[in-house]
Parts: sequence; structure tokens; C-alpha cells
Amino acid sequence: MAQYNPPLRDMQFLMHEVFNVAGELQALPAHKDIDADTINAVLEEGGKFASQVIFPLNRSGDEEGCTLNKETHEVTPPKGFKEAYKQYVEGGWPSLSCDPAFGGQGLPVTVNQCIYEMLNSANQAWTMYPGLSHGAYEALHAHGTDEQKKTYLPKLTSGEWTGTMCLTEPHCGTDLGLLRTKAEPQADGTYKITGQKIFISAGEHNMTPNIVHLVLARLPDAPSGSKGISLFVVPKFQVNADGSLGKRNGIFCAGLEEKMGIHGNATAQLVLENAVGTLVGQPNKGLAAMFVMMNAARLGVGNQGLGLTEVAYQNAVAYAKDRIQMRALSGPKAPDKPADPIIVHPDVRKMLLTARAYAEGGRALSMWTSLQLDKEIASDDEDVRKESADLVALITPIVKAFLTDNAWISTSHCMQVYGGHGFIKEWGMEQYVRDARINMIYEGTNTIQSLDLLGRKVLGDNGAKLKKFGKIVTEFVEAEGTNEAMQEFVNPLADLGEKVVKLTTEIGMKAFGNQDEVGAAAVDYLRVAGHLVMGYFWARMAKVALEKQGSGDPFYTAKLATARFYFAKLLPETASLIRTARAGLKPLMEMDEALF
Amino acid sequence: MAQYNPPLRDMQFLMHEVFNVAGELQALPAHKDIDADTINAVLEEGGKFASQVIFPLNRSGDEEGCTLNKETHEVTPPKGFKEAYKQYVEGGWPSLSCDPAFGGQGLPVTVNQCIYEMLNSANQAWTMYPGLSHGAYEALHAHGTDEQKKTYLPKLTSGEWTGTMCLTEPHCGTDLGLLRTKAEPQADGTYKITGQKIFISAGEHNMTPNIVHLVLARLPDAPSGSKGISLFVVPKFQVNADGSLGKRNGIFCAGLEEKMGIHGNATAQLVLENAVGTLVGQPNKGLAAMFVMMNAARLGVGNQGLGLTEVAYQNAVAYAKDRIQMRALSGPKAPDKPADPIIVHPDVRKMLLTARAYAEGGRALSMWTSLQLDKEIASDDEDVRKESADLVALITPIVKAFLTDNAWISTSHCMQVYGGHGFIKEWGMEQYVRDARINMIYEGTNTIQSLDLLGRKVLGDNGAKLKKFGKIVTEFVEAEGTNEAMQEFVNPLADLGEKVVKLTTEIGMKAFGNQDEVGAAAVDYLRVAGHLVMGYFWARMAKVALEKQGSGDPFYTAKLATARFYFAKLLPETASLIRTARAGLKPLMEMDEALF
Repeated sequence: MAQYNPPLRDMQFLMHEVFNVAGELQALPAHKDIDADTINAVLEEGGKFASQVIFPLNRSGDEEGCTLNKETHEVTPPKGFKEAYKQYVEGGWPSLSCDPAFGGQGLPVTVNQCIYEMLNSANQAWTMYPGLSHGAYEALHAHGTDEQKKTYLPKLTSGEWTGTMCLTEPHCGTDLGLLRTKAEPQADGTYKITGQKIFISAGEHNMTPNIVHLVLARLPDAPSGSKGISLFVVPKFQVNADGSLGKRNGIFCAGLEEKMGIHGNATAQLVLENAVGTLVGQPNKGLAAMFVMMNAARLGVGNQGLGLTEVAYQNAVAYAKDRIQMRALSGPKAPDKPADPIIVHPDVRKMLLTARAYAEGGRALSMWTSLQLDKEIASDDEDVRKESADLVALITPIVKAFLTDNAWISTSHCMQVYGGHGFIKEWGMEQYVRDARINMIYEGTNTIQSLDLLGRKVLGDNGAKLKKFGKIVTEFVEAEGTNEAMQEFVNPLADLGEKVVKLTTEIGMKAFGNQDEVGAAAVDYLRVAGHLVMGYFWARMAKVALEKQGSGDPFYTAKLATARFYFAKLLPETASLIRTARAGLKPLMEMDEALF
Repeated sequence: MAQYNPPLRDMQFLMHEVFNVAGELQALPAHKDIDADTINAVLEEGGKFASQVIFPLNRSGDEEGCTLNKETHEVTPPKGFKEAYKQYVEGGWPSLSCDPAFGGQGLPVTVNQCIYEMLNSANQAWTMYPGLSHGAYEALHAHGTDEQKKTYLPKLTSGEWTGTMCLTEPHCGTDLGLLRTKAEPQADGTYKITGQKIFISAGEHNMTPNIVHLVLARLPDAPSGSKGISLFVVPKFQVNADGSLGKRNGIFCAGLEEKMGIHGNATAQLVLENAVGTLVGQPNKGLAAMFVMMNAARLGVGNQGLGLTEVAYQNAVAYAKDRIQMRALSGPKAPDKPADPIIVHPDVRKMLLTARAYAEGGRALSMWTSLQLDKEIASDDEDVRKESADLVALITPIVKAFLTDNAWISTSHCMQVYGGHGFIKEWGMEQYVRDARINMIYEGTNTIQSLDLLGRKVLGDNGAKLKKFGKIVTEFVEAEGTNEAMQEFVNPLADLGEKVVKLTTEIGMKAFGNQDEVGAAAVDYLRVAGHLVMGYFWARMAKVALEKQGSGDPFYTAKLATARFYFAKLLPETASLIRTARAGLKPLMEMDEALF
């Protein structure tokens, strides 16, 4: 009963009216021939694939889940997943933003990110199969040997094989320094890897003939802790010199997790027994190599949150327009009906607009970050690359944590709009809530993201990266200083910007005394920073909408109304967050551990 | 792997050290013989039953769910549920606070509420079977004929039969005025009732030989809307004059809902085909009669939220003490281990303390409300009855909505403490999140609660009820005015009290212009009011803890630390809520419905 319409108009608004994406990309040698029409055509086709092919498998995939054959160790995903994946490969979607040197289409990340948003809206569990591949592709592309690249990248680019990231073990997730999986060097230059990995998304399936696992393990002489971790590529089937598949490797699925959500994705326990692998990058530098995947994956997870926010919003709106219940307190709005549609009720609107403002604001944030990533990757100007890299580094934990927290808030609100029907599986909404919950946990919990933001990205360089973003905001605020119509947007933005500077300084000072002050404030701080960033994008969108509202296109009217809602009802959350961040460490540490 | 320890010490602290429950109850004729020892003994036994008998069925019940035999229309609850119910009846638990005139033990509501908190912690889905019965008991006790009372109350009291509330229909939940189920009067004084009901909790099962359904329906000549609804008692099996079971009645389970949570409870679609029923109360006054059940049920739902908050907290604490991961930013805390237990990390503590503060604060709020209810029911002084009734009316929507929202926040935090394991069913935590979600929806969504609070209970009598509670707060604040140690608690409380008065006045004024202003502010307002009420109880608890902290009992140390956490990290949420409440209706209504 659920529905999904790709938000093409909003994507195009951001690309062509707010961010001048085509123009910005054309300045990059690799993308000099890109134009708006090409982008629009790709988005449209991607939207069709998402809404017509994988969206119909979303609920059935949730209901059926994945099945492990305990004898063969093979996993069967839900019905239709394999066929949809075949179509995905035939459509050339896996190669969209991959390197042409390995068969890729070389399109910008910015376009790929929009495709992924739509795939995530349509079916997050399915989308994780190709999504994880892309991470493996990135790590090998950045750190693989020529031999590894030749062997794996064309297959990952075409989608003929998929990939995984094998980090977590039963006793360590956040703290990879504790990991125990061992890699023994062999005479032929390969390694035999033995250990146990858990929570491996898309870790086993029969959708492709091979799976390329990227595995963190320790060499025999490795230092303890996170400085003794190396990265290996461990294919499910070994690959012969001619590229054909060889022996089944010693990496087997020992179990699938029963989870709250994303049932359609196989969350595998993998046992490695003398699995043959080759080293990726330098010995003991595996964590750094893995972070190439991880940063991309974190943006991807934020994008999952965005996708769920959008699809939940669309469905809740449809329900709220259709369902009639009670009269508006201010008098009947649909006197011809026995009751008013519930969208007349202010709090229903508040819940809907929350999801809408977080979806549209999150899309702006996500797209802008992808554009910086394109510049970081493809600019021929080193300064631009450095500047963009700093901005991406700063914003990545915000995209991951802020957008996934917002998805949790939004999907829960959308569920509430449905009343009792929201709790019933048949209506499709409760799945979005369950699926949304994992995004706050994996690829580094949102607490870890907040520590990355405040501890490393902000305080770690004495605020240098934050100042770069601050400069962007300040320039915008100043440029709009004489624009009367923009004051309702830029004033609260400027005010919040000043508060963030003060808050950052204050926490930095406290942290000199006790580093735990960072941990005490970080989660609140990230949400404050998230609103600063999102507020900036809402102000920019409002500016365009103000300029074009005379056009008669109601799109701009709606955009302005949503911007006003955001500043009136969502951004003020920062008032409390700043207070609780400033309340600091003491209230958290007063109680002795034994008294908990 | 989950665990549950009945929080007897905290219940006894509230009863005997904060609220003087035994003393207050002894002033009521019906409870003049109650004493602390009796209360403690009942709590202890109830805790044993909850933790030893029904807690072990919680996860298996979630996994197995209920089964409908489509031919016989019989429902089988999960394994062990029926046997546990038998033990519950044999233990005399259903009759605890029932009227001795019908076989009840006549114990105060305050005690019963604590037992229910523990049952809900242990197994919410199971607890809903006896929980709904109690609502049916209340409605019949208040509005039934002598014949109805004689027929049904002894069986509901003993637990030999269970009861239900049949309100919702597919096209109406919140708006019962739309309901269509029809009742045709028969020559013998009975009615034949035909229609369809959905979302009937505990609506069908084989745990008892009969089920007493209370059904809302329309008489043939009934006015339209909510003034044309009558209440009927419709037993699953008709009851012969001698009390034995007669013919199977025309009320059948046509389906069970597949839900996000509370899988162990049968959420039934009930079809009535000429089901024989008798009228409860006056014709067309059914909604008023049903509200007797509903108000009790709303307090019960708040109590469900409390129960889940407590059990989630206990489990998250155990995990956080056991799981080692990363070092404290301020340096190793467990240098003998490869990493520190995660409870050293400030944000883990923040998540745990949030759940703890909401559990302990919620328990105080819930218990105090029950005590007012005991006075309302059993005082021989009409003024006391009226005063208590007003306070209960005011606080009921807060208990329902604030405690269930807090449970959603808390269970989600507790899940986050588990990292990836929180998402895995095996660990038991994700079930609490799923179960917690329904409590925000049923028995009137939390939006409806907020409209009940702000529109009816607060503005509806020009703030008279609110002033009664305000007076309690003010007296406390003034009494502690010279107590230096209490200033950290009473100052923010006094400040919030003043702000609530201003906010109330402001919304009231706006509502003169447009009643929808109430709907725009209500949800934020309820949470602000919730913090005022909970802040008052935290201050009272802090006062006792301050007085006794010299005793050396670390219970008081922990209580004080939790109180300080509450005021530093949770109550400041009101700063944002007051802003967004004041932002009013305009940002919600600006966008035309068509543009959503």
C-alpha cells in the first residue's frame, strides 16, 4: 500500500537553481562535458529503477528476510532481490561514478548520491548490497596494488561481483584495536587469515558468483592496538590468473543475525579458516586504508537516513490527506464530509513538516557535501582539493549522525500520523522506523560521529575547519545583510553561528582541564552544528525561492513555507542543546559506577 | 539474556519516605488498616511473580506471537502465557484492588499500580490481558446494572474471565463519533449488535473460558456523532441465569494484526453478527461510560512506558558495565583490562542516566497520581474527593503522553548503549523499543492527550486545575526558600513554574482568536508541563535524599546524583519547547494542503 515518487523536482532545484552543480562540475577536468540535461536524464532513469524495480520488493523483503542453508553456508536473499540486482547491473548502475580506467562511467559523486538517495527510499535493505560494494571499490582503488586493481575493480565496477567491509568481531566494534583475526604470511606472498567477523552487511548471498571481502586482521608481529591492523582482500572464490573463478576460499557464513529491521539484507557472521587473502596497502596501516571506505560509507549512511525520511514523509502525507477524523478546532474544513482530513490538524502538519524540512534540508546538505567530494577528487587545483577535503571531513560526521537522527525522529512522527495503523505492518510505515534505527548505529555510532566532529575535526585543528565553514556562512549572511526579505532567515542563522563559536571555545577551554568534557558535550554539539549547517542551506534555498516566487510555480511557495517552518519549529532545538552541552561533565560523572 | 530486578527499594523509598503513602491511605476509611509492612509484602510477592513467572516469557512471546485458527476463530497466545495467567489467578492478583463486594481484596490503587509497573517491565504483551480486564471491571462497576454487576464483576475480579474495550473501527479511532456498529433492541430487553471492530487488544484468546467485551455501538434512533453512542456488554459466551456459560455469542475474531511490537498480545479484528448484548449505563451516553475505562487505561499506558523504561535501563547498565571498548578520553580507568568498560564514557552515562531519571521520576509521578486516585475514590470528605479528582484529571494526560514519550527516548538510548548488539533480537533490547512505540499511540494518541491537557483540562476551566497543582509547587518552593542545599532544585523549578503560567496565558489569549492555536502548541506544552510536574517530584526526592545522605546508604547518594542530572540535562529541554510552542500556528498553516 506504500508509495514512492522520486523527488526529481527537488533534486533539480538544488542542482540547477541553488548549487549550480553543472557549472561547478564543468570546472573539473574529468567532468568538463557534464550538463544539466545529462544529469536530469540519469536522475529520471534512476528514479524509475528505484520506484519500479526495487520499491515493490521492500515490504516482501522485510517479511521474508534472508535464509541461510547451514550445510552449504549459502544465503538466499528475499524473492526478487537477485533478479532486481541483475537488472541493476544490466542498467549499468554500479559503474555510474566509477573510474573509466576500470570500465566506469566516470560520472560525479553528486549524481550518484542522488541515485542512492532514491534507492534507499525505495529499499534500504536491497540497496546495501551494491552500496557495500562501492566501499570495497573505493578502498581498492585508493590502496590496492595494480594486480589487485586489475583483478577486482572491473568486476566491482560492472557489479558482476559485490564487496563487503569485514571489521567487527564479537568483542569489538567501535574499538577495532582489540581485533583478533590473524593473518599468516605464506611463501607465495599471500596470507592465510583466520578469525571470526560479525555484523557483515551483505556478507553472503547468491546474487553474484563472487564476493570481495575486505578484511581487517593482524600480522604475527603486529603491534597491539589499532596500530597493528592490516587490510586484506579475501574473495569468496579465489581468482585464477586469467580472471576465472578458482577454489572456494575459507570464508563461510556461520549464521545470520535476526534483527529489528533491514531484514532483506544478510547480516552475516563470517568464519575465516585459513582463508587466502592478499595485503591491501601497507602492513599495520589497515585502519587508515579502511577509513577510505568508512568515510564514504558514513556519507552513504546519512543518505540512507535521508532516503527513509523522504519516503516516510510521502506516505504520511498521502495518509493525512485521505484519512478523515475529527473537525478542525477552528471549525469544519471539509463540511461535505463526515469529518475533516487529518492534515487540517496543526500537530499533524507539524509532524509532516518536520519530516519534510529534514528531508529537503538533508538533501541540500548531502548534495553540497557530494559536490565538495567531487572537487576533492577531481579538481586540478591543489588548494581547491585541500579546501574541499577539509569541508568534507568536517561535514561527514554531521551528515551521518544528524541525518540519521533526523530520520529516526521523522519516521516516528510519520508513523504517529497514521495512528494505530502506523503500528501495523500492512501499512508499511513501521518498517521505515525499524530500518531507520540501524543507521544511528553502524559505520560508527552517532556518539562516535560526535566525538569525531568535536574532538578531531573541530578541536583537533583548533577550529580551522570549522572556521572554513563559518566563513561560508558569514559571507552569505553579510551578502544578504541589506535584503529585507531575507532577515527572517539570516538573523537566526547569524545568531546561531555566534553561539557555536562561543560554545566551541568554551568546550575547548574545558577540555584542556579534562578531555572527558569533549565526550560530555559532543552529542549535543553535533546537533547544534547540524542545525547551523542545515540552517545555512535552508536560508540559501529560501533565497532562491524568494527570488522566484513571482513565477507562479507553487514549488517556491512550498519551499518558502517549509523554510519558515524549519526556522520557527526545528532550529530552536538548539536553545536547549546549547544549555545541556554547557552543563558539561559533572552531572554525568558524579555517580559512582557501582551505584548505576 | 535480558534481566529484570523489581525496583522494590525505589518503590518503598517513594511510598514510605517521600509520599507517606501508608499514612495518607489510613486516613481513608476503606484503607484504615493498611500498613507499610503489608504494602511491602505485596510488592515483594508481585515482584517475584513478575520477574520469575512472566519475565521469562517475554522474548519467546515476542518471537512466537499469537495464532488464529481461521476455522474455529480461536486464538492461541504464545506458549506459557495461559499457564502464567492461571498462576496469576491462583495468586489472587486480579482481585488486588477490586471491590470486596465482588470478591476483591480492596487494596489501594497505589499498590496495584506498582504491581502493574513490574508486570509491564517483565512482559507488556502478557500484562495487557489482565490489564484490559481491569478496565472492563471499572466501567461495569461504575455504570453496570445490578444484574450486570452480579454476572460479571465476580468473574472479572477473580480473573476467571477477562475483559476488553471495543471502540475502534476501521474508519474511526480518534473520532469515535463516526462509528457505525449498530445495536438493535430486542423484545427481551437485550440488543443484537452488528459491526466490525479493529485493534482490540486481548480481543480473543483461550486463556479463560469467557471474555467480557465492552462494545460501543449506535442505537437505531441515535443522534449522529459522539452523542449517539451507547455502551454494551457483549460476552463471548452468553451467560445463563445460574452463571454457567451458554451459547457462543456472535462475536468472532476475523483476523490478528501483524504489528511492530507487543506480539504476544492478540490485537484482534472482531466481527459482530447479531451478537447479544445488554446496555451499560444510559442510551447515547456510552462515551462517558467508556471514559471511566479510558482514564484508568491512560494511566495504565503511562505505567507501561514506565515499566519499559525501567527494564531497558537495568539491561543497558549491565551491558555498559560488562562491555569493554576504548579508553576514557581522560585516560584509562581499567588499566588491567584491554579497554575500559563503556560506562566510563560520558555519553554512555548520559544515555543511561536519561533512562534512570525518567524511570525514577516517572515512578514518582505515577505513584503520586495513584495516591490521588485512591483519595478520589475512597475519601469520605467531598472536598478531598473533588480536589483529588481535579488533580487526577489534570495529570492523567501527562502520565500517559510524557511517560510514554520518555519511554521511547529511553529505550532508544538504551539500545544505542548496546551498539550493534542493540539491533539484534537475541539481546532483547530492541523488543523494548518496538513495544514502547505503541504506548504513544493507543488509548488516545499523545497528540490527543496534549489537546486533552491544554484544551480541556487547562484552558477549559481557565486554569483552575493547573492552579491547584501550581499551588502545590509554590508551597514547596516557598517552604524550601531558606534551605540553601535545595536551591539548585527549587530555583529552576520556580523559574519553570513562572514560565508555564506565562505560556498558558499567552496561548489562552491566542486561542480566543483561533482555536487552532491550541493544537499548534499542545504537544510542546504537554512536555513542558511534564517537566514541571516531574521537576517537582525530583525536587521532593532530592529533599529526602539530602536529609538522609548522612546515613551512609548509597541509595541517597545515587538519588541526589540522578536529581542533579535531571535538572542539568533533561529539564532544560523546556527552553526549546517554550520557544516552539510560542512560535504558534502560522508556520504550520502557511502551506496549502495541496502543496504537501
